[in-house]
Amino acid sequence: MKLTTDTFSTEFLRLAGDFAERKFLLGISGGADSMVLADLCLRLNFRFEIAHINYKLRGEDSEKDEALVRHFAEENGIAHHIYKVSASDGKPRHSVQIWARNLRYDFFFKLLSERNLAAVLTAHHLDDQLETFLINLSRGSGIKGLGGIPAKSDKILRPLLNFTKDEIYDYAEAHGVIFREDLSNFSDDYLRNRVRHDVSPKLKKVFPNFLSGFGESIQHLNSANAFIQREIVKAFSEIFVDGDDENFRLNREKLLGKDEFLSREIIRRLGFSGEEIAKVLSAESGKMLRSRTHEIWITRQEIICRTRSRNKQ
Amino acid sequence: MKLTTDTFSTEFLRLAGDFAERKFLLGISGGADSMVLADLCLRLNFRFEIAHINYKLRGEDSEKDEALVRHFAEENGIAHHIYKVSASDGKPRHSVQIWARNLRYDFFFKLLSERNLAAVLTAHHLDDQLETFLINLSRGSGIKGLGGIPAKSDKILRPLLNFTKDEIYDYAEAHGVIFREDLSNFSDDYLRNRVRHDVSPKLKKVFPNFLSGFGESIQHLNSANAFIQREIVKAFSEIFVDGDDENFRLNREKLLGKDEFLSREIIRRLGFSGEEIAKVLSAESGKMLRSRTHEIWITRQEIICRTRSRNKQ
Repeated sequence: MKLTTDTFSTEFLRLAGDFAERKFLLGISGGADSMVLADLCLRLNFRFEIAHINYKLRGEDSEKDEALVRHFAEENGIAHHIYKVSASDGKPRHSVQIWARNLRYDFFFKLLSERNLAAVLTAHHLDDQLETFLINLSRGSGIKGLGGIPAKSDKILRPLLNFTKDEIYDYAEAHGVIFREDLSNFSDDYLRNRVRHDVSPKLKKVFPNFLSGFGESIQHLNSANAFIQREIVKAFSEIFVDGDDENFRLNREKLLGKDEFLSREIIRRLGFSGEEIAKVLSAESGKMLRSRTHEIWITRQEIICRTRSRNKQ
Repeated sequence: MKLTTDTFSTEFLRLAGDFAERKFLLGISGGADSMVLADLCLRLNFRFEIAHINYKLRGEDSEKDEALVRHFAEENGIAHHIYKVSASDGKPRHSVQIWARNLRYDFFFKLLSERNLAAVLTAHHLDDQLETFLINLSRGSGIKGLGGIPAKSDKILRPLLNFTKDEIYDYAEAHGVIFREDLSNFSDDYLRNRVRHDVSPKLKKVFPNFLSGFGESIQHLNSANAFIQREIVKAFSEIFVDGDDENFRLNREKLLGKDEFLSREIIRRLGFSGEEIAKVLSAESGKMLRSRTHEIWITRQEIICRTRSRNKQ
């Protein structure tokens, strides 16, 4: 689908719903994807502010990214918020990606509340979606993981998710959008980069229009997953006897009377997986079982559940 | 998972259920996959007969495949059925694959009934599953298509489906299984061959243990899909007023009262897709709509459905 102000606006309105008239926050790195997003919002006269994080991980490049974002905002008279990472933000421990994401979303959500903004818009696109999908596929994910990055989650909207990176670059070229090549492919995101450079191009070469078919598939998976999650919640509320988040009791007979898929998924939510699930469902009364997250006791009529204390884990 | 008589036997028993004690038909091409399947069945003392089709598409190679299968059967005292394609079988029109598959399954099912055999065993494996998955993903399939090749469908069992091609080759080498390299990569199965030679190796190179994670993912998708199909059938029977396969009436209010995913899927089964589905669900009474397969009339309380005559299409 060609990326234009029209196609973007259609996608945006489909997602934004009640938010549409309010003011947004744009998370902007200075790369092509987010600068195109900013350009689109500007041309469509959206009301928005800009947030940028300078992670200070790439020396002069980090400063140039910040300068580009700052210049764009000032030139267009857009309120902007720059966060410079400092010693007090700690250092990445296991994964730079996770550390950076946490900093980013903490900053974004703090701004949402302080500035009374409706939601964050991010520039995730269909190529990002494919990379996430393949990584999750390789990890044995269920439909939940394969449904991929949601176009809307809580207060984050991703209106470019159905557009490809190529379509975004085409837009940038056609509209003279200024951006800096995204150099933030942090080294420990090795797997995603290999998917991006080795696997995705092969798929696109072998299948004509791979991304558009993939985009449809993932939308189907997403709506199937949303249905399944609604059914699980419904079934859970029907077998719930009483209790709170930490300690609760489930009606065992009703649980076993549910469609087997649902009863398995409910036990999965208690932290069990694989063959443990069948063991829980067929356990005799008197049995106590322990998962990563819960301890459960099987009685004749009930399953008594207790969340395991985090300290003990 | 290493392929041994033990791991195979576990997979087989899980699938075969009530069939396990009966006699099977093995569809055998002479390639590594099916000769390994035959070797396993032999070592496990399964009761089986063998079916082979000589498509006569590859001259001397076709004859050598047939000779190999015949020799294996005779040496091991196994009843075998060889079908030689003749002029009366027609010629492939659009797709050699589809033509060959039709011939094959006609032959298999005729033998099942004539020889009173329990089911056909085929040698499909996890690499086949991945190829089918990626092809369907590129076509925008929903969860039904992405659930992939079923391990058990009607009277066909695929006990090697959770093993990889490498594991099958390892078994062949370890047990001295004699086979002929499968040259039957018919030319119009171009796409599958490109996936096999270009895409799959990349995925396996980038992701350690890709196939095992993929195998888990597809099992999750399969059970999610099976649940969804059960829910659709249940919902359909609840909104069904009366009629037969050709002409029937649905309760419109009950349809609209179902979870939106289910009502959409039911309309999809009437041959509508994409944006047509929403049109059907929001149509005013008096409206007539036509899909590829059905004509429907919307009344105040019902949707009256008629299968379109094939001649008219």
